[in-house]
Amino acid sequence: MAKKIKPVRPAARLPKGFRDIEAAELCASQAMLGAIQATYERYGFEPLETPAFEFTEALGKFLPDSDRPNAGVFSLQDEDEQWMSLRYDLTAPLARFVAENYDRLPKPFRRYAFGPVWRNEKPGPGRFRQFTQFDADTVGTESVAADAEICMLAADTMEALGIERGEYHIRVNNRKVLDGVLEGIGIDPADADGAKRLTILRAIDKLDRLGSEGVALLLGPGRKDESGDFTAGAGLDDKGIARVMAFVDSGDDGLSDPLTAISELVSGSEIGQRGLAELEEMQGLLVAAKYTNQRVRIDPSIVRGLDYYTGPVFEAELTFEVTDHDGRPVRFGSVGGGGRYDDLVARFTGKSVPATGFSIGVSRLQAALIALGRSGRSSAFGPVVVLVMDRAELPRYQRMAQDLRDAGVRAEMYLGTSGMKAQMKYADKRSAPCVIIQGSNEREQGEVQIKDLIEGAKAAQSIADNKEWKESRPAQVSVAESDLVAEVKKIIARHQG
Amino acid sequence: MAKKIKPVRPAARLPKGFRDIEAAELCASQAMLGAIQATYERYGFEPLETPAFEFTEALGKFLPDSDRPNAGVFSLQDEDEQWMSLRYDLTAPLARFVAENYDRLPKPFRRYAFGPVWRNEKPGPGRFRQFTQFDADTVGTESVAADAEICMLAADTMEALGIERGEYHIRVNNRKVLDGVLEGIGIDPADADGAKRLTILRAIDKLDRLGSEGVALLLGPGRKDESGDFTAGAGLDDKGIARVMAFVDSGDDGLSDPLTAISELVSGSEIGQRGLAELEEMQGLLVAAKYTNQRVRIDPSIVRGLDYYTGPVFEAELTFEVTDHDGRPVRFGSVGGGGRYDDLVARFTGKSVPATGFSIGVSRLQAALIALGRSGRSSAFGPVVVLVMDRAELPRYQRMAQDLRDAGVRAEMYLGTSGMKAQMKYADKRSAPCVIIQGSNEREQGEVQIKDLIEGAKAAQSIADNKEWKESRPAQVSVAESDLVAEVKKIIARHQG
Repeated sequence: MAKKIKPVRPAARLPKGFRDIEAAELCASQAMLGAIQATYERYGFEPLETPAFEFTEALGKFLPDSDRPNAGVFSLQDEDEQWMSLRYDLTAPLARFVAENYDRLPKPFRRYAFGPVWRNEKPGPGRFRQFTQFDADTVGTESVAADAEICMLAADTMEALGIERGEYHIRVNNRKVLDGVLEGIGIDPADADGAKRLTILRAIDKLDRLGSEGVALLLGPGRKDESGDFTAGAGLDDKGIARVMAFVDSGDDGLSDPLTAISELVSGSEIGQRGLAELEEMQGLLVAAKYTNQRVRIDPSIVRGLDYYTGPVFEAELTFEVTDHDGRPVRFGSVGGGGRYDDLVARFTGKSVPATGFSIGVSRLQAALIALGRSGRSSAFGPVVVLVMDRAELPRYQRMAQDLRDAGVRAEMYLGTSGMKAQMKYADKRSAPCVIIQGSNEREQGEVQIKDLIEGAKAAQSIADNKEWKESRPAQVSVAESDLVAEVKKIIARHQG
Repeated sequence: MAKKIKPVRPAARLPKGFRDIEAAELCASQAMLGAIQATYERYGFEPLETPAFEFTEALGKFLPDSDRPNAGVFSLQDEDEQWMSLRYDLTAPLARFVAENYDRLPKPFRRYAFGPVWRNEKPGPGRFRQFTQFDADTVGTESVAADAEICMLAADTMEALGIERGEYHIRVNNRKVLDGVLEGIGIDPADADGAKRLTILRAIDKLDRLGSEGVALLLGPGRKDESGDFTAGAGLDDKGIARVMAFVDSGDDGLSDPLTAISELVSGSEIGQRGLAELEEMQGLLVAAKYTNQRVRIDPSIVRGLDYYTGPVFEAELTFEVTDHDGRPVRFGSVGGGGRYDDLVARFTGKSVPATGFSIGVSRLQAALIALGRSGRSSAFGPVVVLVMDRAELPRYQRMAQDLRDAGVRAEMYLGTSGMKAQMKYADKRSAPCVIIQGSNEREQGEVQIKDLIEGAKAAQSIADNKEWKESRPAQVSVAESDLVAEVKKIIARHQG
């Protein structure tokens, strides 16, 4: 007789860098997405959903910090052996969509989009291979009024989420101004110095993390980090470094007008002057719409790590500190950013289509809201649970649950087959506000017991004695079966208060 | 001199089988998902979101009609060369989640989930490689009260979406009853006849499409379709075919009680009797909760094509006809289905965890709602557009847009750089309810013109003469700038009415 082979069972686990999102977090996240969406719609943005896949060549290679071709994305071949990839952001698919449908779209085209994006990068704490972005973009206008509006939108979104004025800043800069500064130290952004410019951009982008000293090293000879790894620098001389750092630091105090400092630094550069004029126009629009320094401010240290920005760049920064698990103060920093990119559609059509946009990193922002205690879960408790005291009476219990639902109350009959104790434990696990109990005694009298679990939990803390507990039966009422719905609604209203 | 090489531009298009979803469809779809979600929550289901990827071995091979290994899914290897796949439904990830977190979950575990799923199958008209499913499942109880409740949930969901009683049926059957019928013709479902049983299941599942005659051929010798392709049959003899068809047709008239007919057909089979008892218990619960024949009905022709169902199976069917583009009547048929599957978690743990669930095919259901004219887009029109008559006054126009937004009105300033005519065309394309106009004359008088585009379009139909039009200026009012918001709100309220 052949030996029986033990079946090999698959392991119940997820691939590295992926995670499940459970009810509490998901409800808060949905409330958050809803608030963002309402704000974006009020600004006249319309939704668009593109699929997860794009042709790899259509996506291009625009991931920050990944210079290797195809690095950072999940790719596979279709049946015609063409490579397709999962989107790594929502901007590249938008560029493809606009190029594909340009003629019939309203111009400017204003769309918002949210959904998962995927990055085939090394996962780490809080760093996943699938995460959600929420973007708004205005495509088809070179007017910086569109950029100013994106800043207002970002500010309004923060406030719609319960982040108060003063707890956030929308920080604005302009790549043309930075190019002007670079021109002043002999780097022509239009010629072969592209790689050097990108190194400089990425050095400045690390200011938050490395401080002025670290950035200065990356602008110059390079920097050795704590682990001993060496990052090559941009090779600027001391004068060049000083000039770039003067620019970067010119918005530092948040009080003096950085436009004055910028004006001096770009005095000899045409492109720098243009950038300055754009910043001034944006500031005019912002102030007129009452988005003053407290909400939106010019800050030359904002450059963004992406190569493709061509003008204004923005970042939404949370300014408050929270303490982490070890009691150390942590600053949340950036929760979103964006800028003007005038060449993404041209990749497809050869025709430049100016565009500007803003992207929110949803899970980072949600972490901040949780830290603030403003994560806004819509309901603090679960469904009412109708206990099953007598399986022969299932139809009766089912109807009670249905009556509650018909009245708009979240409710369920216990669907398992265990006894009373397990059922109470289940109701606890579901955070039920109350349970409905009808044994044969109650049934004969046409009554039900309603046990208020929230009230009961409070009472339990003050009643030590088991006998006393049983006698007083705190937070438990007996009502006529016909009053069930009304009584439950009263209890829920009390706890929602 | 070297020749300049013309840059190769990527084509702006999507891979085969994928599509973009634009504003009108997406808004309706979001409204629909919201209504389903509210219903599921009222039933006490909690949300869960699993990621797009699972390990391929964790997903298993449960796609209907695809017997080849790995056929039908998108797969790639991670950096450890382990195969991972995009989920093809929401049930397989749920089974993995439950197996992974079994001990800490409330039992029964009731969750809903919605999101995209991916199938690497041949795309066709209305058949895409990415589509949305909306599922509810109760895991961890063998009580058919859970199945009965899923049927109630499905019925309530249809009605929440505006599909009225009588326009849908939730149809219920039980695989055990079918197995009892098969036992009666000498097919033991527990032994090696599994393949034959699956052929019979899939034959019955095609009743809608092929009619009784076609199904009978597939139960017997096999069937040649219109293109000449031959599908092998299950090889039943005439008596066997007659018996299976008698079962399948026993719910046909919707009037006589199919339970009586079933009872006769499974009289000699233990498993058949158990199935019958389950159907009877479900019917008792459904009737007690007032879900009568008109909403939920037993129909032996419902079997579902998936192999893994072990007991009750359900299908939500739309019963009304609509006419297609060519004026032919089309019946929508199934928009969702599900059933009991007791072995999916056991794949991982070896321990059987009974479960039951229901899945809605969102785009099919949405097509039905559109055909019914009940697709429920939240807003019939776009944002108010503030025209730019004088670029020097941008800050002023911007503030008007912002004032409207602050009052909760969707509004935008025109962000392009074109003239009046293009701006009006833009406002039309955006379905703006009205536009705000302030030229220098109006500005000096502290006034704005509000042009009601909806009223204007109506008036245009009755005014033929261009001169008369210009003189009467229909649907255009001049108001003090301070009254702008109040006046716009009046216009919007009028059109929402």
